[in-house]
Amino acid sequence: MTATGADRTLALLEAQVGRTLAEVETPVAVIDLDRLEANLTELQAYADAHRLALWPHAKTHKSPEIGRRQLDLGAAGLTVAKTGEAQVFQEAGVTRLLVHYPPFGDAKWERLADLAAAGVELTVAVDSVEPAEGLARAFDRRGVSAELLVELDVGLHRTGQTTVAGAVEVAERLDRLPALAVAGISSYPGHCRRGDPDVAAKLRAVDGLLRETRDALDRAGLRCDRISGGSTPTRHLTHTTCVNELRAGTYALLDRNEADDERCALWIEATVVSNAVHGQVVVDGGSKTFTSDPYPDGGHGSVIGAPAAWFARVNEEHGYIDVSSLDEAPRLGDHLQIVPNHACGCINLHDGALAVRNGVVDHVIRIAGRGLVR
Amino acid sequence: MTATGADRTLALLEAQVGRTLAEVETPVAVIDLDRLEANLTELQAYADAHRLALWPHAKTHKSPEIGRRQLDLGAAGLTVAKTGEAQVFQEAGVTRLLVHYPPFGDAKWERLADLAAAGVELTVAVDSVEPAEGLARAFDRRGVSAELLVELDVGLHRTGQTTVAGAVEVAERLDRLPALAVAGISSYPGHCRRGDPDVAAKLRAVDGLLRETRDALDRAGLRCDRISGGSTPTRHLTHTTCVNELRAGTYALLDRNEADDERCALWIEATVVSNAVHGQVVVDGGSKTFTSDPYPDGGHGSVIGAPAAWFARVNEEHGYIDVSSLDEAPRLGDHLQIVPNHACGCINLHDGALAVRNGVVDHVIRIAGRGLVR
Repeated sequence: MTATGADRTLALLEAQVGRTLAEVETPVAVIDLDRLEANLTELQAYADAHRLALWPHAKTHKSPEIGRRQLDLGAAGLTVAKTGEAQVFQEAGVTRLLVHYPPFGDAKWERLADLAAAGVELTVAVDSVEPAEGLARAFDRRGVSAELLVELDVGLHRTGQTTVAGAVEVAERLDRLPALAVAGISSYPGHCRRGDPDVAAKLRAVDGLLRETRDALDRAGLRCDRISGGSTPTRHLTHTTCVNELRAGTYALLDRNEADDERCALWIEATVVSNAVHGQVVVDGGSKTFTSDPYPDGGHGSVIGAPAAWFARVNEEHGYIDVSSLDEAPRLGDHLQIVPNHACGCINLHDGALAVRNGVVDHVIRIAGRGLVR
Repeated sequence: MTATGADRTLALLEAQVGRTLAEVETPVAVIDLDRLEANLTELQAYADAHRLALWPHAKTHKSPEIGRRQLDLGAAGLTVAKTGEAQVFQEAGVTRLLVHYPPFGDAKWERLADLAAAGVELTVAVDSVEPAEGLARAFDRRGVSAELLVELDVGLHRTGQTTVAGAVEVAERLDRLPALAVAGISSYPGHCRRGDPDVAAKLRAVDGLLRETRDALDRAGLRCDRISGGSTPTRHLTHTTCVNELRAGTYALLDRNEADDERCALWIEATVVSNAVHGQVVVDGGSKTFTSDPYPDGGHGSVIGAPAAWFARVNEEHGYIDVSSLDEAPRLGDHLQIVPNHACGCINLHDGALAVRNGVVDHVIRIAGRGLVR
């Protein structure tokens, strides 16, 4: 059987261990261990200080190693978006998982029941009854159980019940299902972005809606002691709301959307492969290395140490860097280190990343949860 | 050792063989075999009719199976962007490869020399001397050879020498290197897009530049019998230019950028997972399934059979479909079939695709070249 791209990539990455970054093959995802540890420690300390249960969203890193680090620091469990991710983390020994995505179809229901049967304390967030009905059948048949959170739309207008009455109605129907117990509500304030001047007011509105829903569930005789919420941009304001379970993903790595370069633990090590067009260099990473995930200014990443370099455009394997404002342009063969716009999308393109300490490759972080499996 | 995401995905895909599309797990990439074969046959017939050597760009599909089909139909060889892709196709038995990307670094030079030593007739396109110097050392040491094409910038302003004099100077320096022989020039008319009213005029200008460069190389006593060019949007106009080797990639699958839905061989089978927000459904694929690759109208894909549905937005695992213009909205659990904006980027997210004939899964097409390996 043909080797997969993942097999080849991991073998190639393992060969880089012990090298300095200047010596590694490019393009490659690099994770700086000092920065990773600082990011993980900082949010856990915040959560501890405010008695919030931290449920890191593992979709950012899809990595058993980083998930393990988050749990060792005190996270209550991990959040995942896919049943396949849940399997990966269960196999890595994680015993408390929140699947924050409505599962549809027999295969997904059975897969989650398998995880519960293997001893995982599962929570599933849904905004309708249909996926939970299938889940209830599969769980009931195995004699296992899970908790449910009812998702509320608090402003992103993506998923979630849009009214308190709607949420209560769904919760009442969910609570009549076998094997599953409504334990609370969930929300994602994805309409609050970094630097948004209205973020405090927006979160007050979110908090009001969550409290109103909690009180309505109380009156209906339903449990609502778990209130899940949070996001990386709003993470340090979580304690100003009634949310008691903080979900955040990107905080582990950070990216151009969320932080200044010096705090970002993930970057792409890339090589200048062309300087034929005046005022420009082309690096060996484009949309298949960085993603096309947008940033408000239209740029595609931040060149570390060269803020005047402008990452103007990506094709699949080409990154166009406008260097016309630099005193000295990078030369052919030089490495550039580029922070991606969006860490979660970027990680999803890579089967592994080089874990680096003081500029030397320490080991390979396997991104075992990347790919299609839902 | 933990299984990779690719291993898990391929096992899951293999379990879908024999099912109808309505029964498959989603989200999943689907390739319709009838359409694929029609697309491949059509361009090979065009190339044959005009005595053009077809060098399909395998970056679109990264699949040994589809590459094999292209060669069996009469392609002269395959084009690749990465040395890792070249390895994948060599292992699949391909013996003529054009690496249309400047290779930098010992590892890449050695890898290409290995391929030549294994019997592959290699051509490499470069726009500078530096990568070829390393290549020459590696090839000379093994006693193997390769042909070079000098890349010209014909309007995209990405890579390629920007003047005839520059191209001749690079060619003269390349021709003095051991083990490598300049055989011609290469170009990519990426500035010509589908539906561009000026495309014929733009291609005349491209043709003029190519002829001028060819004549200058002739005068300098250098070989220029290989003139590589073409793209999917301009593929049927290639015979109006002096290009004699046609590179096109996307034509194999086609996508929203390049064709109407009914010719596109690739789509994503997705499931409606939420309808909580009025006038909208959310499907279980977002930027990690489709990419964020843009389309001029800002949409993210085309819902087959429902042109009034508007794929308005993607998050990582959520696709927002505005269904307010539909007479009947899709229901929870329904499948939608969605053509992505950009086939090449989409394929790069998936480790395999379901090959479908008449709506039934025939086998799994492995995307063995996906991933990081450059």
